[in-house]
Amino acid sequence: MTDEVRTDDFVSIYEVGLRDGLQNERGFIATEDKLVLLEALLDAGLRRLELTSFVSPKWVPQLADAEEFARRALPSRSGTTLSALVPNDTGLERALGAGLPEIAVFLSASETHNRKNTHKSIDRSFEVFAELVPVALAAGVRVRGYVSTVWGCPYEGPIAPERCVAIAERLLLLGCYQVSLGDTIGVGDPKQTRDIVGRMLAVVPREKIALHLHDTRGTALANILAALELGIREFDASVGGMGGCPYAPGAAGNVATEDLAYMLERMGLETGVDLERIIAAANVAERIVARPLPGRLHRAGPFKPRAAS
Amino acid sequence: MTDEVRTDDFVSIYEVGLRDGLQNERGFIATEDKLVLLEALLDAGLRRLELTSFVSPKWVPQLADAEEFARRALPSRSGTTLSALVPNDTGLERALGAGLPEIAVFLSASETHNRKNTHKSIDRSFEVFAELVPVALAAGVRVRGYVSTVWGCPYEGPIAPERCVAIAERLLLLGCYQVSLGDTIGVGDPKQTRDIVGRMLAVVPREKIALHLHDTRGTALANILAALELGIREFDASVGGMGGCPYAPGAAGNVATEDLAYMLERMGLETGVDLERIIAAANVAERIVARPLPGRLHRAGPFKPRAAS
Repeated sequence: MTDEVRTDDFVSIYEVGLRDGLQNERGFIATEDKLVLLEALLDAGLRRLELTSFVSPKWVPQLADAEEFARRALPSRSGTTLSALVPNDTGLERALGAGLPEIAVFLSASETHNRKNTHKSIDRSFEVFAELVPVALAAGVRVRGYVSTVWGCPYEGPIAPERCVAIAERLLLLGCYQVSLGDTIGVGDPKQTRDIVGRMLAVVPREKIALHLHDTRGTALANILAALELGIREFDASVGGMGGCPYAPGAAGNVATEDLAYMLERMGLETGVDLERIIAAANVAERIVARPLPGRLHRAGPFKPRAAS
Repeated sequence: MTDEVRTDDFVSIYEVGLRDGLQNERGFIATEDKLVLLEALLDAGLRRLELTSFVSPKWVPQLADAEEFARRALPSRSGTTLSALVPNDTGLERALGAGLPEIAVFLSASETHNRKNTHKSIDRSFEVFAELVPVALAAGVRVRGYVSTVWGCPYEGPIAPERCVAIAERLLLLGCYQVSLGDTIGVGDPKQTRDIVGRMLAVVPREKIALHLHDTRGTALANILAALELGIREFDASVGGMGGCPYAPGAAGNVATEDLAYMLERMGLETGVDLERIIAAANVAERIVARPLPGRLHRAGPFKPRAAS
């Protein structure tokens, strides 16, 4: 959540399409196109956005323009938080050099998935964070933490929720202001979501928890509903439903920003997102990735009855 | 629900793909192909299925083989309820001739939509039902009632929930054993679902209520979760997410049977549906309609961790 005072009816949508979405698209998307999409997302009212990732371009060539994109994206964005993933000290240096006000560190609740995704053990990830996070904080940069495969791992299967909670707590203890819990391969169901979120809420205030749900099996909005009922008020989403994880077999996109905004707004909750404009942004996303995206609202349109003919 | 005694953990999935799905596909699907899909659905464990519609082939040429399909589908299906839509006396005669144990009548909560879809006023629809339903019941045939556009009408916009409840009550009073409330154009949200279902439950026992939700904007599973929490235990679904309404602009398919079964089974509820087999049925459906279907699970597969490599 932002630092602003919000009523309980405000639900923050954290847009990750430019990073989590585009990193999984085939081929490099021009910086110019990313800037056009960013403008469309800002126009739609999104105020928390992850721009890119300062990982090695060797691993994620789609985001090789991280510095240039950040440099061109950052000026004059008051009231907006732009962030980027940072895997290590080198990434942090690049992020600080680019002048980002926020970064995100990430690891997996599954040892196997963490090794495949980051080439480190979970313990080694925390050693890296223990050096990196204080440097970021000292530079006035806020740090968000991602925990992936919380709802299940493609290699290890179910992950004990106690383990996920312990990892999230360690991230918060290191200085992350929030942890975003990921259903990386989109296997979660609402009952499991209640269990995981309930366990988190037993030890952590709700504003420190966000959910990052992939919609691989269509359950993301139902899981979000279950979390909303427990008081969670921030959800990551990706315009058009772009995204996935190249190291998680079968992973489809994040929950689509426009579908999430539609459901929340129809429920009388506030998102700050304009539905017509987020549909326009999803159409921009579809054009620049040059493939149909799985989100629904940008095809169906919002609920606008037409006059009987 | 069937007449069998079920625990509260059993959720009945009413498969409507053969009717609501196929009636919206371009062109006629061969009876042989429909029989193959029916077999796949029965193999997957579905026990309540709508086969076809005894409307005029002039209106729905896709289902012009209603008699032949019903005749070939019906024998030796003990423990299974096969049904068909019946719009009028002629349709009822055809359904009785085919030996169906159950039929469904249908109307819209929206006057405009009802006129466009059935060429009758709502009052005229009820006059037809008042003649038709007693004949069916006297012949030992059970009658289900559909109310469409409950969550919103493409022509009239929002429909007063009191109006929907009154129409549902009239159907039950006429002798329908259950009403299936339809979000025909898939605009509903969970808060609205709670409101509509809550109002229904104030006047009708829960086993007399089913929901028939189209997933046009991705909210169907979240709406089903909201209804589950209120005690509803039957939901219509369409294999692969086929379906829609030719007279409702922008309507996409029903919630996909396999995605619904996945969510319910993962929540520890029983559906009687085998996930691998319903995926196989969705693949059959995709083959016979020769286009990609919007359901998610048949592409992603159930949650089966693979050994770490």
